[in-house]
Amino acid sequence: MPENFVVTPWEVTGDIDYERLIEMFGTQKIDSKIISKFVEHTGELHTMLRRGIFYSHRDMDKIFQDVESGAGFVMYTGRGPSGHTHLGHLMPWLFTKYLQDKFGIELYFQMTDDEKFMFNQNLTMEDTRKYAYENALDIIALGFDPEKTHIFLDTEYSNQLYKIAIKVAKKVTFNTTKAVFGFNNSTNIGSIWFTSMQAAPAFLPSVLRGRNIRCVIPCAIDQDPHFRVARDIAEGIGFYKPALLHCKMLPSLAGSDKMSASLPNTSIFTIDKPKDIKKKIGNAFTGGCVSVEEQKVKGGNPDICSVYQYLYYIFEENDAKLEDRKTKCRSGELLCGYCKQYLTEKVVTFIEAHQVRREQAREILEKFMLRDCQGEEK
Amino acid sequence: MPENFVVTPWEVTGDIDYERLIEMFGTQKIDSKIISKFVEHTGELHTMLRRGIFYSHRDMDKIFQDVESGAGFVMYTGRGPSGHTHLGHLMPWLFTKYLQDKFGIELYFQMTDDEKFMFNQNLTMEDTRKYAYENALDIIALGFDPEKTHIFLDTEYSNQLYKIAIKVAKKVTFNTTKAVFGFNNSTNIGSIWFTSMQAAPAFLPSVLRGRNIRCVIPCAIDQDPHFRVARDIAEGIGFYKPALLHCKMLPSLAGSDKMSASLPNTSIFTIDKPKDIKKKIGNAFTGGCVSVEEQKVKGGNPDICSVYQYLYYIFEENDAKLEDRKTKCRSGELLCGYCKQYLTEKVVTFIEAHQVRREQAREILEKFMLRDCQGEEK
Repeated sequence: MPENFVVTPWEVTGDIDYERLIEMFGTQKIDSKIISKFVEHTGELHTMLRRGIFYSHRDMDKIFQDVESGAGFVMYTGRGPSGHTHLGHLMPWLFTKYLQDKFGIELYFQMTDDEKFMFNQNLTMEDTRKYAYENALDIIALGFDPEKTHIFLDTEYSNQLYKIAIKVAKKVTFNTTKAVFGFNNSTNIGSIWFTSMQAAPAFLPSVLRGRNIRCVIPCAIDQDPHFRVARDIAEGIGFYKPALLHCKMLPSLAGSDKMSASLPNTSIFTIDKPKDIKKKIGNAFTGGCVSVEEQKVKGGNPDICSVYQYLYYIFEENDAKLEDRKTKCRSGELLCGYCKQYLTEKVVTFIEAHQVRREQAREILEKFMLRDCQGEEK
Repeated sequence: MPENFVVTPWEVTGDIDYERLIEMFGTQKIDSKIISKFVEHTGELHTMLRRGIFYSHRDMDKIFQDVESGAGFVMYTGRGPSGHTHLGHLMPWLFTKYLQDKFGIELYFQMTDDEKFMFNQNLTMEDTRKYAYENALDIIALGFDPEKTHIFLDTEYSNQLYKIAIKVAKKVTFNTTKAVFGFNNSTNIGSIWFTSMQAAPAFLPSVLRGRNIRCVIPCAIDQDPHFRVARDIAEGIGFYKPALLHCKMLPSLAGSDKMSASLPNTSIFTIDKPKDIKKKIGNAFTGGCVSVEEQKVKGGNPDICSVYQYLYYIFEENDAKLEDRKTKCRSGELLCGYCKQYLTEKVVTFIEAHQVRREQAREILEKFMLRDCQGEEK
């Protein structure tokens, strides 16, 4: 890759050129035609579409055709439970929740506890299972419909998933995984196998219904390689190719790359206390100058500012307010301290309310869980 | 491999040098010390041990230690359900049944329907599932104890197996599978993954019991590579290395290689009719001469005769009778026609009785089956 960035399902580094990613991955830009379909069916234009946060897709035109024909569609998304949930994870889930509300559709939510165990030498199966259930609380806390949302751990639903995954695996060579994921001969055979398990939920709704139904996967674009593989083999095993809706990745508070659970001080977790949030945002990378005096004269640069990015991606839905902030930053009128304080209040308010719902989620968790042996003691 | 034969779990061709295989695979010959342990614990010397049909092992000394200490052991064996059962499959199962009777131990019997689906372009999942249940009838017909014998299909028990298999898979690199199985970059990722599923039942009894128990795997030696991999990683994931008991492979009626389901005319299947058996043995390769006259003068060669091999491996347990037959063959006194007739009668009698028990097995099949969701509708 001659680029200054790396984007794979397991590594995101550098300054990502999202337009270039569309070319590299061979996806399609969410253009005015797709946008107008969203407006037609939802009666509005969601902030994440308006701002190009969800910016790339595959086959969304077919999804809308199936909406219009009455065939319907379902959603699938997932989480690799290697740690606690942070805001970077929540971002696409917020949009997924919105889609569920607007289209009234079912969502299949995969927790890849097998993946995180096999890819990470430091994680045990107990660790990834524990995080999967912790992460599930965050999903439920966002308000997904318990009747239409099915959360499952790969290790708890493998009877169902394995039968689909082996159909996928039969069609995918090691060569393909080398090319798509950058594996080599020292990669463990569980990691090589895993993309079959990540493909399976795209076909699961069709298997459960006994008829093919189209599936769209809202996810950060770093996950696209898995689904490129899934799409390549889908029709050969009798299913529709999954459609995709790709979002950009919430940057870290250090200013570049995606927010990463492995760098806890530059990510805001849903279990963080207000004082942690205040401290992390206080230390965030901004576009400000070295001294207040200098900034009042030269102004700041919101384009490289992680605080601005957080407001842009999630916490300031009002375009006019955001624009005003940008202008005042550039002019030197608005200093970093004020922006950090503003964001801190927004984030603390959000996280505090989230944590209340997160605790309530424990009571209804079981309504959401899909397991091979429902009703049997595990 | 500079040898004149190839032995892998998926390919057996050429004239197998079994002593050389012991060196190549790094196993141990069943020597007088192991033999005397069998005699000590069973009070006899089974034909298949006496004749060196079961001839190689790994860690049988440790199995006998655990018998003597009271720790006990279990057995695991399996079948790749790519077709109907033939005599080559039954041979090690007969010995496995004998061990169950003598030691009163539990047996876990894996049907690798996933393997045969993923390795064979021409087999569907419905095919391999159907054959698994057909093969299960043959296992049960041999008289295994329904209380102590647990048969499972990988696709029906994958919830349990997958959790063990991912622990195995995390420890095995693609390099290892290349070296052990001869895979290459064009191998599908299901095939690469599969050895993890074949390893899992070796550790399953320990998982089910919640304490480690040693496991011995009686199998034809072509399966050893899987368990070499399993043994390498066993202790690293907290289990005992599985012990092995290796047998030679029943030759085909064409005179060399192992009996193969893909060459139906040179194998005798448990569902064959007497007329088929008669015809197949009638066409078998022998060590006889071109004409009866010539054979009466020069004698035959039992060493290369498939009819003799069948008597040696399974159908003539009486050593004196077998020796007498050999002598009379070499002298020209005994002609191929008589031997073929003798073997045909033995095989037809065996298969007819087996087929009766095979039908009865349908009634008790469910007693043997282990599935993820016992009692739930599949």
